[in-house]
Amino acid sequence: MSRLSERRDFATEICKQAGVMAKKFFADRVNLVVDQKGAQDWVSEADRSVETFIRQKISEAWPKDGIYGEEHGAVAGESGFDWVIDPIDGTTNFVNGIPAWTIVLAGVTNGQTEIGVIHDPNVDETFVATRGETATLNGSPIRVASGVPLRDGTVAVGYSNRIESRHVLPVIEDLIEHGAMFHRNASGALSLAYVAAGRLLGYVEEHMNAWDCLAGQLLVAEAGGVVEDQNADAMIRDGGRVIAGTPDVFETLREIAENAWSAQRLSKRDPT
Amino acid sequence: MSRLSERRDFATEICKQAGVMAKKFFADRVNLVVDQKGAQDWVSEADRSVETFIRQKISEAWPKDGIYGEEHGAVAGESGFDWVIDPIDGTTNFVNGIPAWTIVLAGVTNGQTEIGVIHDPNVDETFVATRGETATLNGSPIRVASGVPLRDGTVAVGYSNRIESRHVLPVIEDLIEHGAMFHRNASGALSLAYVAAGRLLGYVEEHMNAWDCLAGQLLVAEAGGVVEDQNADAMIRDGGRVIAGTPDVFETLREIAENAWSAQRLSKRDPT
Repeated sequence: MSRLSERRDFATEICKQAGVMAKKFFADRVNLVVDQKGAQDWVSEADRSVETFIRQKISEAWPKDGIYGEEHGAVAGESGFDWVIDPIDGTTNFVNGIPAWTIVLAGVTNGQTEIGVIHDPNVDETFVATRGETATLNGSPIRVASGVPLRDGTVAVGYSNRIESRHVLPVIEDLIEHGAMFHRNASGALSLAYVAAGRLLGYVEEHMNAWDCLAGQLLVAEAGGVVEDQNADAMIRDGGRVIAGTPDVFETLREIAENAWSAQRLSKRDPT
Repeated sequence: MSRLSERRDFATEICKQAGVMAKKFFADRVNLVVDQKGAQDWVSEADRSVETFIRQKISEAWPKDGIYGEEHGAVAGESGFDWVIDPIDGTTNFVNGIPAWTIVLAGVTNGQTEIGVIHDPNVDETFVATRGETATLNGSPIRVASGVPLRDGTVAVGYSNRIESRHVLPVIEDLIEHGAMFHRNASGALSLAYVAAGRLLGYVEEHMNAWDCLAGQLLVAEAGGVVEDQNADAMIRDGGRVIAGTPDVFETLREIAENAWSAQRLSKRDPT
């Protein structure tokens, strides 16, 4: 077994264990301590505890690997392999009681995502990708949708307080003009996993952090989809925009996104 | 036991049985026959079979009651009590493999919804309301959120091919201006149930059919929320707009919706 497949199996198992832990916090969320990091930006003791658990497991199994996570500080590694953790993607759903949130773990080396795991403990679905090999859901291969035009499908859009939130409007407007439905379930990782599994046609968000998107981007790519090429190390530093979709719709999504996020379009919509 | 609580318990049990049936179709959806009723409007053999099952159970238990459903013709009743069925709310999710869809059953008499059941078999949550009594989730009372302003919460928006789909844009725009997040999970009934359970602050859709909204509207009302008053019989005939929310945000949602759906606002956005 290669080190990559060892790490993949480790990541899959750890996400499932973390899912059990998170579900306990979720069931008992009436007692959950929730803090506000910023406007519409929440963190709970569940996020912090789950991330601490995953960090500990990584340090035990792969002590020389680096660790980056949403809730705690970076740990530099020596192996050249870095882990990127989102303990709970969809924290807003989690703290409000909506069962649409995931555990996300990505493995990065040389600026490339090599492993991506997205685990949804609410319906027990585990999406796993390794670069150049496969994308699977609960062990079975998955593929993006094929031959479905925008007018027959749904595209997920994401937004957060890190961007001018009105930038999301022209994306939705243009999706509607193309006859597509839009979706926003407040877990970007889950939406990207759904693109990989052929359940959505694409995903568009102006700014995501590495822990939200690296695993999902690899899943879409390995499931036959198209993803804007990005350096994973740069994403870890700064985050960036995410456009992912089936080969049938990707170019149109990219045009919609670039048009929507350009200053020109914004000034046209906002003459003041 | 009153006839109303007998009917409520019957409805709850039937929705759960229908959920088991629908989940089998969902697991085997690679073999599912799917037809298109219109643009972005789908129906599958699962919708038809589940509705047939529910109709049969109603005719056996309450042979004099009327029956209205999304997929089959109306059956006039003699008892004055009518059942309104949505066998699968969120058919698009269902046929695409997204585990966010529900079984919905409402009971109406004298133009008022008396019973509302929304069952989510994916995570085994059953929301039940009876007029003037309670709203419950899996048997425990639920309440809408209290003291949460729009800037700290999420509002779901719905749209369909029955309206000019661009009408949804100003709703999203104004929600963002108020600092709210928006949500669209493509099951309106599930979103209304989430409002009742305090998971979302509100729901806004310009046109819903009775089978999509009557059960959820009763749930929100009985959970302490505010719902635009409508005659259920008129909704069965024509459908109508749906605005529902917590007491804290309802008036603002109504203003946002009325402004968004007015011709004036549309012409301002669309000078051509």
